[in-house]
Amino acid sequence: MMKALRLESVGRVHTVEVPPPSATADGKEVLLTVTHCALCRTDAKMWRHGHRDLELPRIPGHEVCGILEGEPGHYAVWPGVACGVCPYCSSHMENLCPSMKIIGFHRDGGLAEQMLVPRECLLPLPPRLKPHLAVLAEPLACCLNAVQQAKTRKGDRVLIFGAGPVGLMMSLAVRALSAQPTMVETSSTRWQKIKSFCERTGLKVEPQTPMEAFDVAINAATSLDTFTHGIHGIKPGGCFCLFSGLDAKGLVPSSLLNEIHYRQLNITGAYGCTRKNMREALEIMASHPGPLEELVEGFVGLEGVKEMFPAILRGEVMKIIVPLSS
Amino acid sequence: MMKALRLESVGRVHTVEVPPPSATADGKEVLLTVTHCALCRTDAKMWRHGHRDLELPRIPGHEVCGILEGEPGHYAVWPGVACGVCPYCSSHMENLCPSMKIIGFHRDGGLAEQMLVPRECLLPLPPRLKPHLAVLAEPLACCLNAVQQAKTRKGDRVLIFGAGPVGLMMSLAVRALSAQPTMVETSSTRWQKIKSFCERTGLKVEPQTPMEAFDVAINAATSLDTFTHGIHGIKPGGCFCLFSGLDAKGLVPSSLLNEIHYRQLNITGAYGCTRKNMREALEIMASHPGPLEELVEGFVGLEGVKEMFPAILRGEVMKIIVPLSS
Repeated sequence: MMKALRLESVGRVHTVEVPPPSATADGKEVLLTVTHCALCRTDAKMWRHGHRDLELPRIPGHEVCGILEGEPGHYAVWPGVACGVCPYCSSHMENLCPSMKIIGFHRDGGLAEQMLVPRECLLPLPPRLKPHLAVLAEPLACCLNAVQQAKTRKGDRVLIFGAGPVGLMMSLAVRALSAQPTMVETSSTRWQKIKSFCERTGLKVEPQTPMEAFDVAINAATSLDTFTHGIHGIKPGGCFCLFSGLDAKGLVPSSLLNEIHYRQLNITGAYGCTRKNMREALEIMASHPGPLEELVEGFVGLEGVKEMFPAILRGEVMKIIVPLSS
Repeated sequence: MMKALRLESVGRVHTVEVPPPSATADGKEVLLTVTHCALCRTDAKMWRHGHRDLELPRIPGHEVCGILEGEPGHYAVWPGVACGVCPYCSSHMENLCPSMKIIGFHRDGGLAEQMLVPRECLLPLPPRLKPHLAVLAEPLACCLNAVQQAKTRKGDRVLIFGAGPVGLMMSLAVRALSAQPTMVETSSTRWQKIKSFCERTGLKVEPQTPMEAFDVAINAATSLDTFTHGIHGIKPGGCFCLFSGLDAKGLVPSSLLNEIHYRQLNITGAYGCTRKNMREALEIMASHPGPLEELVEGFVGLEGVKEMFPAILRGEVMKIIVPLSS
């Protein structure tokens, strides 16, 4: 038997003892012993509100690192199962594959001692990268996808709404393209939390949207204001990337959309990441592991996960990591 | 003295006799004798509602063809005056120049017997292109800008909302990129008007948005539905181009914008055109003049323009051309 966290229905999650899954005879799906799984805001959102891609009941967890019995080294997990043959899969956009099954959404994820995972989802960790930090490869890969979708170029000034763990990782992704990030963060509590990270990395945070016009803007926060301020905050021909889904029930006036028309703006979405993004993320993390450690707020056992969800939804904590099999 | 149509204030337009403008001594601004000027929906919109870029009082008209005294041949007019040195002007995006002055909006246009125009705005007509058709170069150039902003590729299936004169020209622009246009037109009156054009060109028109997913969608109509149906009508990773400004006072739910996030859609704006687009449009028109003649509903004198505006706003007429000096 193995311990796992299972979301039974919206609002109802608990730890269970269940039989571990079995590897497939053809070797395509292997049994990963999970060493660490990080909690994502989306996990908390699933618990509170559900999610478009969630199929219940489900073991969540899509920011995963683990080992294979009898093999050396750790692996990070690209949390997708794509068909491999459609036009999206054939052109390195496998995150858009129409038959995509997301690990932790459509199939069981990493908040368990063991998980079944397609062999081709496993990416070996580069030397020097600690396994507990490797769980950050998936969110960083999603940030890399966002800055790439936004066609960020060297030297571009990039506005990022939100300076939580995702906003900070987005800043690192922007820097990886030799562009210049500026974060906007309105919460003074969060300012305190990220002070040392920003000092150490030299990243800029502003308490409100600056007056100058940016080349690119990206939201790492769910408020509808991020869309409105983003549209107004970019230059003619600039790009706003909808990285975070917006709070439901908001309404946008057509006059705001007409700004897209008059100033030839680009709005682009970003959802998930590709294997290539994961590999890029692992390389960046191995080269600059220093500040990543500061993104980690703390560790919690499977039993403590549910209690963390409200604070995660309120944006009060940085990354929380669940250590599993050691 | 010369005859001109002057928009004095929103809702108030009349013909006037005014002194013609004078060419500048340095030869940069020349006096064009206008032979033809077509009416655009935007001219009618300016009269009814005003426009973001309109400065009053104003002689409207931005789809212009004319001659220079003492020189052979006709010229089409790129209706913009850009600074020529900013980053936009330096990278063939002069339509986004921050100091852009649009002819017929910020400065006097072609609904007059003569107009002052920068020499560098004049584009000689290719042989074989009739001057009264050359007025269509500007709207076709705007369509070419739209399909290019939408990154339309060879073979792409492109959905176009609206089969008025602009929708039809958009279809020709899509075909110029070897992509496949499908128009959606809900008005049965318009179906009658475009029947012969569509038969002659083999263009497809549907009475409602087809169920299949398109690579690109473009609105050539102002209804907010074009945005909603456009978002739903494109594939993951596809592009919707806001070519037409949307009716004011509409509201879009954030759940619709979240489709951009979840399916990594691209929304792009298109506004005006570049000199390069104008040159491309003139070449296309010279190669395929046949169907263009069918876009012309009729001719009207300056005194008849005001009476046409309501029908243009209701989308009841194809292109109306004002012949001026002959």
